[in-house]
This record gives sequence, C-alpha cells and structure tokens, in this order.
Amino acid sequence: MTVTQTPSTAQEPRDDLREHVRDAARRSKRAAAELALLNRGTKDRLLHAMADALVRRAPEVLEANERDIAAGRESGLSEALIDRLTLNTGRIESMADGLRTVAGLPDPVGEVLRGQVLPNGLQLRQVRVPLGVVGMVYEGRPNVTVDAAGLALKSGNSALLRGSSSAARSNDAEVRILRDVLAEFDLPLDAVQLLPSEDRASVQHLITARGLVDVVIPRGGAGLIQAVVENATVPAIETGVGNCHVYVDRAADQDTALEVLVNSKARRPSVCNSAETFLVHSEIADEFLPRALAALAEAGVTVHGDERVRATGGEDVVPATEEDWDAEYLSLDIAAKVVDSLDDAVEHIREHSSAHTEAIVSADYRATQRFTAQVDAAAVMVNASTAFTDGGEFGMGAEIGISTQKLHARGPMALPELTSTKWIAYGDGHVRPTGS
Amino acid sequence: MTVTQTPSTAQEPRDDLREHVRDAARRSKRAAAELALLNRGTKDRLLHAMADALVRRAPEVLEANERDIAAGRESGLSEALIDRLTLNTGRIESMADGLRTVAGLPDPVGEVLRGQVLPNGLQLRQVRVPLGVVGMVYEGRPNVTVDAAGLALKSGNSALLRGSSSAARSNDAEVRILRDVLAEFDLPLDAVQLLPSEDRASVQHLITARGLVDVVIPRGGAGLIQAVVENATVPAIETGVGNCHVYVDRAADQDTALEVLVNSKARRPSVCNSAETFLVHSEIADEFLPRALAALAEAGVTVHGDERVRATGGEDVVPATEEDWDAEYLSLDIAAKVVDSLDDAVEHIREHSSAHTEAIVSADYRATQRFTAQVDAAAVMVNASTAFTDGGEFGMGAEIGISTQKLHARGPMALPELTSTKWIAYGDGHVRPTGS
Repeated sequence: MTVTQTPSTAQEPRDDLREHVRDAARRSKRAAAELALLNRGTKDRLLHAMADALVRRAPEVLEANERDIAAGRESGLSEALIDRLTLNTGRIESMADGLRTVAGLPDPVGEVLRGQVLPNGLQLRQVRVPLGVVGMVYEGRPNVTVDAAGLALKSGNSALLRGSSSAARSNDAEVRILRDVLAEFDLPLDAVQLLPSEDRASVQHLITARGLVDVVIPRGGAGLIQAVVENATVPAIETGVGNCHVYVDRAADQDTALEVLVNSKARRPSVCNSAETFLVHSEIADEFLPRALAALAEAGVTVHGDERVRATGGEDVVPATEEDWDAEYLSLDIAAKVVDSLDDAVEHIREHSSAHTEAIVSADYRATQRFTAQVDAAAVMVNASTAFTDGGEFGMGAEIGISTQKLHARGPMALPELTSTKWIAYGDGHVRPTGS
Repeated sequence: MTVTQTPSTAQEPRDDLREHVRDAARRSKRAAAELALLNRGTKDRLLHAMADALVRRAPEVLEANERDIAAGRESGLSEALIDRLTLNTGRIESMADGLRTVAGLPDPVGEVLRGQVLPNGLQLRQVRVPLGVVGMVYEGRPNVTVDAAGLALKSGNSALLRGSSSAARSNDAEVRILRDVLAEFDLPLDAVQLLPSEDRASVQHLITARGLVDVVIPRGGAGLIQAVVENATVPAIETGVGNCHVYVDRAADQDTALEVLVNSKARRPSVCNSAETFLVHSEIADEFLPRALAALAEAGVTVHGDERVRATGGEDVVPATEEDWDAEYLSLDIAAKVVDSLDDAVEHIREHSSAHTEAIVSADYRATQRFTAQVDAAAVMVNASTAFTDGGEFGMGAEIGISTQKLHARGPMALPELTSTKWIAYGDGHVRPTGS
C-alpha cells in the first residue's frame, strides 16, 4: 500500500497512519522470518558492527540530538526531561558497549528446553524460537532505541520501535545507522523500524495490530504502561512500576536493616527498584525508628509516617495519607508504618504492593521463610537491598524491562524472555489410533 | 459488599453483576494466597477426595444434568450441543479419573528453575509459584468445570469458572461437591467458584477484573476465544483454533503420507488438532493425488481443491475459494492445493496457519530441517499425524487447553503452564554500591 503524502480530507491522515503502522508491522513480520534463521555468529558480528558504526557516526547522532534538545527547550520541556533526552559521546559509547555485551551473551534461540521419546517412539522436543515482532513503546530516552534493537536482534526478533516525539530526530539518526549496518550484512532493513511519533495515534495502531505484532513492551512511567496494557489487543508485558517495601522484622540486625533501608531508598530514587515504603515491627520500633529516621534524614529523605512513626519522629515526619501507601514516589520520599507482626506486614504488602520487589531484614529463619513464601512479587530480597532487582545485577547482561506481571516473564527480562517455544516431533509415519 | 437481590432500577442489575464478579474475584484472590502454601501431599489427597465425592454423589450431578438437557431441548439446542452437554456415569467416572491423574503428576510449585551465587555473594534462585486466580471461560461441556478446577488446585491456583448457561445446573452441582470437599479439608471454599452465567455480561466483568484475576483462559469455539482475547484487560491466553496443514513433500514416502494425511483429518475431525488443508508438491501430485483423493473419499472426507487438484479429482472435488484456505472446518472437509516447492508450502502456511500444528511428510533430511525451522507454529510434526498435539499424548498427563499464542505458553498447557515464577535472593546485608 502507498501512504498518501497529501491527505485531502480530515479523515484520511488517521486512516493513513493506521495503514502505515500496519504496513510497517507486516514488513517487520517478513523480516522476522529471516532473522529467526540467523545463527549466533552472524548476529554477534552484526551487533559488533552496529556498535562500531554508532561510535564512528556519533557526530550524526549528536547533531540530531542537539536539534531534539533545542526543540525540547523551545516547547518548555523540564530540565529533568532534557537531561533524559541528552546524548553525549560517553552515552553513545555506553550504547555501543551495551550492544557488545549483548553480542557476548548466549543465543537463546535453538535451546532445547525439554525433550523425550514418547512411549510410541515419537521423538519430542521443545525448542526456543524468537517471538517474531517485538513492539516497544517508550519515552524520551534515545538509548532505549539501541538497547531494544540489540536485544531484539540477538534473540532473532524484529524491533518495531515507537519512541517519544521529543527524541524523534535522535532515534531516527540511530535507526538510520543500525539499518545501514543491516544493509551491509544483506539483512532486511525492516528488522529495525521506527514508527512515526508526531501523532499519538501510532501507539494505538501498534498495540492493536493483532496477528502482526507478537508482543508489545511499554517502557516508561506508570501512565504510559497502564495506557498500553489496558488498550493493547496485542499481548503486552506490564513493566516497571515499583512500589517496593522494606520490612524490618523484630529479629532484624539493626545495623543491617539501616544499611539495606537507606540503600533501597536513596541509592537511586528515580528507578523502579527503589523502596517506597518501610514497615517496622512494633517490638523494635522504639529503638530502630530514631536511628532509621536519622539515617534517612541524613540521606536527604522525607519520611511520610503513620501515627506511630510520627510519635517518634515528631514534626520531621510528614503525616501519611492513604495515598502514600500506594505512591511510587521515585523521589527522596518514603512512607513508613509500624506493624505489629510479620502477618500485618505481609497483609500491608499484599494490599499495596505493585509486585515488583519486596525485602525483609531479619535474622529469624522462620520469619524469612514465611516472608518469601507469602509475599507475591517478582523478586523477594532477604537481608539485601531492593536495588538488586536488575538484569545486569542478576547476571543477565542486559535488560529490556522488568516485568511486574505473572504471565510469560516475571522480573528482569533479557534474551530468553524475548523468545517463545516450538514443539517439534520426529516420527516415522506415526498416526494416532482412533479413540485414543 | 452485598448483592442486591431485587434491583429496583434497570441500571442496577448490571452494576450489581459487576460488583458480584469482582467480589468473587477478590475472594478468589484471598483463597489463592492460602492455596499457594499447600504442599503436594495435601493437594493430592484433596483431588482424590474430590474424585471419590464426584463418583459417590454422581446422582446429584446426573439429576442436575437432566434438567439442563430438558431446558436445552426446550430452547432448541442442536443434538450436537445436547451431546456435548450430556453426562452419564461413564463421563463422571472419567472426570474423577482425570482428577486422580492430576494428583499423580509432579507438583510444579516450588521447582527451582535457575539459581546461582552472584559475584557479590547474593544467592539468587528463581522458583515456580502459582499464578493466583485462574479465570476460565468455556462453553457447554460440564467436564471442563472439574478438569479446570483440578488443574488449577494442583498448581496452587484458585479457579474462577464461567461456564455456559446451558450447563449451569450441572456445573453448579459439580462445584457444590468440590466445595464440600474443600470444606472437609478446612480449605477456603472460594478456591473454586462458579460465576453466574445467565447474563453474558459476567464474562466481560471477569476478563476486565485487572489486578484481581491473574489469567483468563477461554476454551471453546473461535468466536468465544476471539471475544475473550480482544476484550480482556486481564492477561489472556489464546487457545485452540487450529487451521492445521499437512504438507506432502516431493520426497515423501507416499504410503506414509496417505496414513498421516487421513489420520490427521479423519481421526477426530471436530478437534483443533485435526488437519484442515493439505498441500502436495507438484512433482508427485500426479501419482499421489489420485491415491489421496480415494483414501479421503473412503474416510468420508469432502475435498475442496484448487484447480490443479480438481484436474485430477474432477467433479468429486469441490472448487476451493479463498475462504477455504482459512477455514477451520472441524468436519469431514479438507482443503487441498498443489504447490511447486517447499518454499511455496511454507509461504502458504505462513499466510493461513493459525500456528497450532503443521506437518511435513518427507524422506528428505534437508526438507524436514527447513520445514521445522521455517514454519512458525506451536507444534511441527515430521512424518507424524497432527493429531499428536495434545497434553495427554505429550506426556503432560492432562491439559487445560492448547495455546496458539507465543507469550507465556505455546502448545498444550498443563500444570507448569499454570504457574509463574518468583526470584528470591538471600543476602547478608547486601547493598548495591552507588553508581553501579
């Protein structure tokens, strides 16, 4: 189909955009069929060549990025968003390094997950295969374009990218470079495509392209994620929202608890694995709370506490409202509550958790066993910071997002999480008896 | 909340139903938290007790079933649907046997899938955990109620069941028996709940109960499945639609091809793994087609062929239209086409397959390798009937459906497919350095 460049009626642009997105998805699907057959050697060489090209052609990307930044300033983008958007030589080097790291990871495709000879002699095996077309919807971080393309390609998938309009020029420059390398390797350019971002509707068209897109992964703030997950008819993976708790048990080593708590909150408050609430057992609250409040204050953290926390912290503690228990602050704020038992802590977490990461600090064996069994989250930390929930830390080498849903993948997602499986049965004229 | 029994306005019943379903889901979720902690011994004893109770109280179920059948006849249900709905002692015995089989299967919960000590000493492991609340939407087969409840319970999940209104009395009798056994075991009755079926809207309320229901699995015809998958905001698993192909390669052993073809089509044409199209390589069409058409005719199969098939089969072959290539007949019909190469076969399958099961018959090593690599389906059969795609045949012991999607589970789904995972990290005061 041909995209009309000069629509003559008000209705046309929207329909054109839909067809444009669907056509891109169809081409992406065809490309995916070729990518699925590539062996690891080719894919690794491709990623190294892409890394080299990004570094070599960094000036092109930086020039495009400058234009994005200028446009951003003009439209009044906040400094935080401008910072997220800004590339420099160092950031481009890290994107390239990211591609090289992914090249060094094992190829998930072809791995035999299960296999047996059935009683009738049929040889059955389950092998990993690429998902096909991976759709990404993300915000104004131009590094996601390269990260996502690298992970998608290594796992044999096409990347269908829908970035933010604020980063459109930067993304475009990056994708142009990646596609030039695809061309050098005689691989389909459609393996990496950037969808138009000037019209919000392209997101909707992408996430409803059932049968053409195999999965859509939103990456960004809670609003974006909810909008994608609730409106997608394509299978979507919910990522990233982290209302993480640290529970300080009555049997906690208090020095350990202080370190874990402060690290969980203050190491990098803007990321999803940072703690947003801490719960402390009433039996040690009198002793622990003053130390915790002092340590948090020293780290620049504002505490939003319930009445019992305020009884200790006084005026320095902001009164917590019901909203605080559900807040993902992503800032130097933390909610705090005194609980009377491990059961109360588990119950509070069950009610308010986003099922990302929950931590317990305790020296009591049974308490840790009960907490890990009863708390339902992607990751449960025992005497360790919530900050460890991360693909890199988990030894995955990279990460395309952290799934907070239970289906398909849970926790940090890397290469195996971008695959599906296929059953292959080798027979010798096997037929199934009637009535069996 | 209380469900108002006598709504006073037209608006109320709908709102009440929504709240009724959501309340059931909330109770289901609470029950799931208890089920998640059960060990295998308890779950197996529970399933055996349920099996015994079903057999002992079969008269109750049969009496309810008779009332369903009478109501079905009155409302003009077809004989096929009446047959699907009908229970007898033998069918109840098989439901009970199904529960006993599931009791004999390994417990997926707690299985350690991956584990390692990270460079910093953090002990990381990934364990299987139940999904939580499994929603089932199904048609008028009362055995699905017991099958689904058994698989859900064994994998530590609550079952939230929405069956057909045509089987409401039968389902209700079954669920009453299962819940009585839950009570004997001092387990939460809400672990198995049947949602009201008189109003279609309860399906919509179930599949949009995000945060309360962890997965919804539709089981039934293509219309039901599409409606659920497209309208669900709860993660859904697409199951069952099977437009399966048998490709007879130029290097096929023709006797093998005949057996595989006839078995794939005619063994049980009403199930999703039966073949709906066969493709034959033009180099052997002259010799193979007459034999194939004769064998299919003998099995009572009507062939819908393209022009080249009709050139051989003449008047006995119904002219195929474009629709035939996409049809899931589920009857003694098959579409047939002559292709000029394996590539053409793969291309045709790529365009029309529902990604359920595809088969190749060939004695050529490279042809089988290419076909298994290039065809993207839940299962690929080499020199074997499509009829083998089945949880029982694959040695899974049971099956809750056959996933035709790529996310989470692909192919027959049994116990492990009803689980998620949880990362658990054991530390000793581990914190993550700033800037890492």
